[in-house]
Amino acid sequence: MPLPTSAQFSFVLRVRIDHRPGMLGRVATAIGEAGGTIGSIDLIALDDFHTLRDMTVDAAGTDHVAAIADAVGSVDGAEVIETTDRTFLMHVGGKIEQRNKHPLRTRDDLSMAYTPGVARVCNAIAQDRDKAFQYTIKRNTVAVVSDGSAVLGLGDIGPEAAMPVMEGKAMLFKEFGGVDAFPLCLCTKDPDEIVATVRAVAPTFGGINLEDISAPRCFEIEDRLKAELDIPVFHDDQHGTAVVVLAALLNAVKLTGKRIEDLDVLVVGLGAAGIAVAKILLGAGVRHLVGCDSRGALSTDREDYQDGSMTPIKRWFAEATNQQRRAGGPADVIEGVHLFVGLSGARVMPADALDRMADDAMVFAMANPTPEVTPEEAEPYARIIATGRSDYPNQINNVLCFPGIFRGALDVRAREITEEMKMAAARGIAGIIDESDLREDYIIPSPFNRAVPEAVAAAVAEQAKREGTAVADGDRIGYAPGDTQDFGAVRP
Amino acid sequence: MPLPTSAQFSFVLRVRIDHRPGMLGRVATAIGEAGGTIGSIDLIALDDFHTLRDMTVDAAGTDHVAAIADAVGSVDGAEVIETTDRTFLMHVGGKIEQRNKHPLRTRDDLSMAYTPGVARVCNAIAQDRDKAFQYTIKRNTVAVVSDGSAVLGLGDIGPEAAMPVMEGKAMLFKEFGGVDAFPLCLCTKDPDEIVATVRAVAPTFGGINLEDISAPRCFEIEDRLKAELDIPVFHDDQHGTAVVVLAALLNAVKLTGKRIEDLDVLVVGLGAAGIAVAKILLGAGVRHLVGCDSRGALSTDREDYQDGSMTPIKRWFAEATNQQRRAGGPADVIEGVHLFVGLSGARVMPADALDRMADDAMVFAMANPTPEVTPEEAEPYARIIATGRSDYPNQINNVLCFPGIFRGALDVRAREITEEMKMAAARGIAGIIDESDLREDYIIPSPFNRAVPEAVAAAVAEQAKREGTAVADGDRIGYAPGDTQDFGAVRP
Repeated sequence: MPLPTSAQFSFVLRVRIDHRPGMLGRVATAIGEAGGTIGSIDLIALDDFHTLRDMTVDAAGTDHVAAIADAVGSVDGAEVIETTDRTFLMHVGGKIEQRNKHPLRTRDDLSMAYTPGVARVCNAIAQDRDKAFQYTIKRNTVAVVSDGSAVLGLGDIGPEAAMPVMEGKAMLFKEFGGVDAFPLCLCTKDPDEIVATVRAVAPTFGGINLEDISAPRCFEIEDRLKAELDIPVFHDDQHGTAVVVLAALLNAVKLTGKRIEDLDVLVVGLGAAGIAVAKILLGAGVRHLVGCDSRGALSTDREDYQDGSMTPIKRWFAEATNQQRRAGGPADVIEGVHLFVGLSGARVMPADALDRMADDAMVFAMANPTPEVTPEEAEPYARIIATGRSDYPNQINNVLCFPGIFRGALDVRAREITEEMKMAAARGIAGIIDESDLREDYIIPSPFNRAVPEAVAAAVAEQAKREGTAVADGDRIGYAPGDTQDFGAVRP
Repeated sequence: MPLPTSAQFSFVLRVRIDHRPGMLGRVATAIGEAGGTIGSIDLIALDDFHTLRDMTVDAAGTDHVAAIADAVGSVDGAEVIETTDRTFLMHVGGKIEQRNKHPLRTRDDLSMAYTPGVARVCNAIAQDRDKAFQYTIKRNTVAVVSDGSAVLGLGDIGPEAAMPVMEGKAMLFKEFGGVDAFPLCLCTKDPDEIVATVRAVAPTFGGINLEDISAPRCFEIEDRLKAELDIPVFHDDQHGTAVVVLAALLNAVKLTGKRIEDLDVLVVGLGAAGIAVAKILLGAGVRHLVGCDSRGALSTDREDYQDGSMTPIKRWFAEATNQQRRAGGPADVIEGVHLFVGLSGARVMPADALDRMADDAMVFAMANPTPEVTPEEAEPYARIIATGRSDYPNQINNVLCFPGIFRGALDVRAREITEEMKMAAARGIAGIIDESDLREDYIIPSPFNRAVPEAVAAAVAEQAKREGTAVADGDRIGYAPGDTQDFGAVRP
């Protein structure tokens, strides 16, 4: 069976082909027989004897790219000139850039945007620091901060190697939330230094999105920054995931008819995301929850709890959950569970153990790229299945949350993102799907559904105003290019 | 005499005018008689009885805006609806934004720009950290770092109030150098914390531009960062000014026929800029130089040198200059001086003292907005006069230097900006004006001359390669939007 091809292994094959009938077909056939998927074909040049063509081809991996190129090269009358990796090409020079909102073509432009005119704006802010939200990028700008210590599934790859992910995150912020985001990858893993650095740069930003910082440091760093800063601080790996899981659950229980309060929940994987998911579920009303880390179910009976070697966050977890003090690995504690949440690793859950779950079982297996249990394996046992992957139904994808949650927080200048605001975000995501449209394989909207960030932003802003976390009333300066012209009088 | 109007005090006057012949003329006359300069006039709405118009008017100050509005309001049949400050309007929501270089419209886009495809790029950088210059924004991105302690002439106004200046600086970087710049305003003035913060964020950036940090902390901060980082660190207030002053001098001596080695130079004002100017002049060959701070000419005879209370940088200055140990204020030590350089304050130089300068005297009086001596006052005594102002000939403006110097440094991935690279930049600026075009009132090109940054970048890149400071050979990835498509094969 040929491997599935994917855009992540897309490349451009530049081929010189003898100029005679049937040749392009022969090349295309060679690509197809080698398992490649042809996209566009461009004619670059031709003369009496040859055509030069750029063929965009999706492959299944880097070795497959080479195999496809070899197959084309072996066609009589075809010669591969070069293969260009489209993913790497897209990254050349970085994926984001700075853009000026106004041209600087004349001395008049300069005298308003820079000296001497800018001095009046500076003075207005010096007299009222709050005006930074009106007259600087602080209004719409979020720092995407990472130390590169827990990047995707790659682990501690360092700040430089983390940059492409943080730039990608910034792109998502802009594309889906109209939020200007800037990546800051730090060459320190010391929590004190990370906190000091983010605190020092905070005047520039309207919010801080922490990203891919390994547990347990991420908890301390987030808590300290939340306490010290008067702008929202949000660790997306924790809370973005938690919000989308809750959104999925809110819709899932509409199908199964269960009350959240009555659910038995098992969370496998207690890194940043797993702990945050457990917290939001408890906040949403879940009363029976067991968490497993690599040493099994957490409880106050466990040896590392008893001997004091457990980390503070897990100590809290052991005390707040698993009242029955169940013990053992995931398969040992799955009996009667309604909701399995996996945020751990590939195939940690034997599929047949799912047979012991309660009726109408829900399996959210989010390890990437290989889930804790594959949807195919889980299907006989579970009514509702979600994963982190885009190639199965019900993708639990953080992009459903973070652009909208920061959009809403910035719109009303929320000083923080509270638990209630996260709940509101989850309800906003869940509410995108009409109850009449809900189905087992459609409990979560698509990340490309533009109604999602709008709904999340509105729900979050509304909640912030209700709680008094909001400073402003929600006009959207800078939501999109051009909006800044939609103004009446602006007085210093 | 009416005050000069300026775009920095430009406003939009929205006026409802009775719809009858001659009314617009009456309103325009009222504005003109009140001293306002009318730009565009737009018709916003009209009905049978009124027209609603937006009139762009330049005034001479904020009080003048009110006076003009009052004058219009007193015209029978005209009513001022609102006045909008165009400088503040331009600042609403900030002046720069983040832009995605690629659209994110499909799952394929996402799978290349973000997960899962991005992981291959991350891995390539993790294996070779240097590839961050190829595949991230590091290649073309400079941090504009300030603590807000010495902003324009406004002093210590804090990081939030400094942001409009740093955003303006970022605009200039982009407009004139194609450099992506991001402002980072820090809420600390402690040199240790500033150094630690910049060091921590350095993996994201290809260069660091320090800005508006007060002396003497700026010297220590720059020196430590230069020693610790492998990317260029440049304090523009010092070196940008120094480069442009040297450029002006290089052209000035072509007119006067003097050799730089034979000049007697007086530098008044020994803050960051004054000291840097003195240093570059010494580096360019000046042998006779005296510097004055607020306590007079620096020398090893001075009491604060003798008692050890002088700052280290001024101790160095006292030892390196003023071999004749002249003493007194600027007017006391100007005898026989060929070049007066002022980087201090308004009117600190009595004009008649200039009479004691040497023949073909050069006066660069750069205090802003009011020079040490005005060009009108200096004119009888000086052959060549330069200022920091745009409304006199020969404006010494840092924008002639910093976009091009970073452009050149980034193009060749220079690890630092050396003294020789600054000299090359000065020669690059000076060389823009053909010797046949040089005149006493045209020794410095316009900041809007787009040949300047190109010439500076080329000269700086060339010098970096000559010295071995350069890592790359100077292809300009990311110089302008669209350039990233001009690629052949890109292999991981």
